[in-house]
Amino acid sequence: MRVVRSVRSIQQLIRKAKSAGKTIGFVPTMGALHDGHRSLLRRCHRENDLVVLSIFVNPKQFGPEEDFGKYPRREQADKKLAKKEKVDIMFVPTAEEMYPEGYLTYIEVERMTHVLCGKSRPGHFRGVTTVVGKLLNIVMPDVLYLGQKDAQQAAVVTRMARDLNFSVIVKICPTVREADGLAMSSRNEYLTVSQRKEAKVLYRSLREARQNVTAGNHSAMAIISKIRSRITRAGSGRIDYIECVDADTFTPLKRIQGKTMIVLAVWFGKTRLIDNIIVHA
Amino acid sequence: MRVVRSVRSIQQLIRKAKSAGKTIGFVPTMGALHDGHRSLLRRCHRENDLVVLSIFVNPKQFGPEEDFGKYPRREQADKKLAKKEKVDIMFVPTAEEMYPEGYLTYIEVERMTHVLCGKSRPGHFRGVTTVVGKLLNIVMPDVLYLGQKDAQQAAVVTRMARDLNFSVIVKICPTVREADGLAMSSRNEYLTVSQRKEAKVLYRSLREARQNVTAGNHSAMAIISKIRSRITRAGSGRIDYIECVDADTFTPLKRIQGKTMIVLAVWFGKTRLIDNIIVHA
Repeated sequence: MRVVRSVRSIQQLIRKAKSAGKTIGFVPTMGALHDGHRSLLRRCHRENDLVVLSIFVNPKQFGPEEDFGKYPRREQADKKLAKKEKVDIMFVPTAEEMYPEGYLTYIEVERMTHVLCGKSRPGHFRGVTTVVGKLLNIVMPDVLYLGQKDAQQAAVVTRMARDLNFSVIVKICPTVREADGLAMSSRNEYLTVSQRKEAKVLYRSLREARQNVTAGNHSAMAIISKIRSRITRAGSGRIDYIECVDADTFTPLKRIQGKTMIVLAVWFGKTRLIDNIIVHA
Repeated sequence: MRVVRSVRSIQQLIRKAKSAGKTIGFVPTMGALHDGHRSLLRRCHRENDLVVLSIFVNPKQFGPEEDFGKYPRREQADKKLAKKEKVDIMFVPTAEEMYPEGYLTYIEVERMTHVLCGKSRPGHFRGVTTVVGKLLNIVMPDVLYLGQKDAQQAAVVTRMARDLNFSVIVKICPTVREADGLAMSSRNEYLTVSQRKEAKVLYRSLREARQNVTAGNHSAMAIISKIRSRITRAGSGRIDYIECVDADTFTPLKRIQGKTMIVLAVWFGKTRLIDNIIVHA
């Protein structure tokens, strides 16, 4: 495995791989790798000749009051995991390498970035699409792997890739969960022991909601209200949002129809967790 | 020469050329081709295996009150010229092909797009960088050719390509001029006979300014004021802006130092013309 820190170096490796006819799979991450990332890397390895992993805690996708400073960074552990998962190139640029002095350019997806996480975190998705756009130009992958846990991010990046004609296939992979159902996230480690116990209510309430939809309850308001009271009863979680949205456009729906996503964001103390489930009605 | 209208078709041709190891040169235009475009195409042909020309009157770079509707469109004449200049692929997409239903993504360069033409034409450069970003992903050229006449556009696109890590070399080619010095532009044909005569003052005043700088006058205010009175005396031209700016960042300067660009935009009736000259002090 090559650990590469400069754009120029990885571009050389990519050019060589391309001209040898190798297919390139790419998993962009912020590091602090867990089993969710691992599942992306495994699928990437099965489906491509070359596996590229990027680790970059992207300052542009954090708000000024957010957890950029304390976001976990553990390159040595990540490197070990990456090696084990047969990553070929681990790209670990600095912020200066990605945003050198005089940097001025941003990629923005309208409308669908202004709701849900985009409403709670202004500028977040602009940071995400900008860095992913840059990484797509640097890595030039055939396939990009994203996790379903960050559902809105996956939808926004898919939209960007299609709109800007990036020659890449975006594959969105199932959320990997802890034994009690909590979606894997690098932010789970912020939780206290009691918050961690309470947090399992998120997925439980989403599964219940899915059962309710399957049983014929198609009113978004009723479904959302049930989830809300379930979470509120379970402990200290403070709800940021719970919505039923169109799975592609992230437009909030009043009536659940066709392929719908139920999405939520809940604060436990200073930690904000997100999760979602897809339902069909 | 292949005339291609769909993104999918040109991508197939590009992929084939790439895998045959051909280098690709790209000249993006809005059509109504003149000798300025011709000089870009010739250089592109000298320096690359494959010459791609795009003709697309991009609605997103025109303001609601601007000349999108009346901008000249003459595909047959353009096709003839393109053939003569040995273009290999002429890409002529429709607006629907470039911006299909549900389109939401924009590329924006900050700061340097808010001055000069960006101030007079809000949203203009956002439209330019968005379409050029898309075209770079579609055509995947090794070299992109732009004209110096649209100096701010060239600087903004260069900035975007660098910031977003597009693997392309941007080459900015000298302005081609009519016998009396007027910069070639598809918009020149909007001019009445008397406006056309008056318009030669633009380049004359810029050349005079360069002489003044060479002679030791380095005050931007004095240089600008001389150009202003020269143009005003010459006839009906109404000045939009005259500025001395840093050639890379387009920051307005008070004192001419190093490589500086003198840029101007002047209205003749409903026609807005731009021109510029580079000076060294």
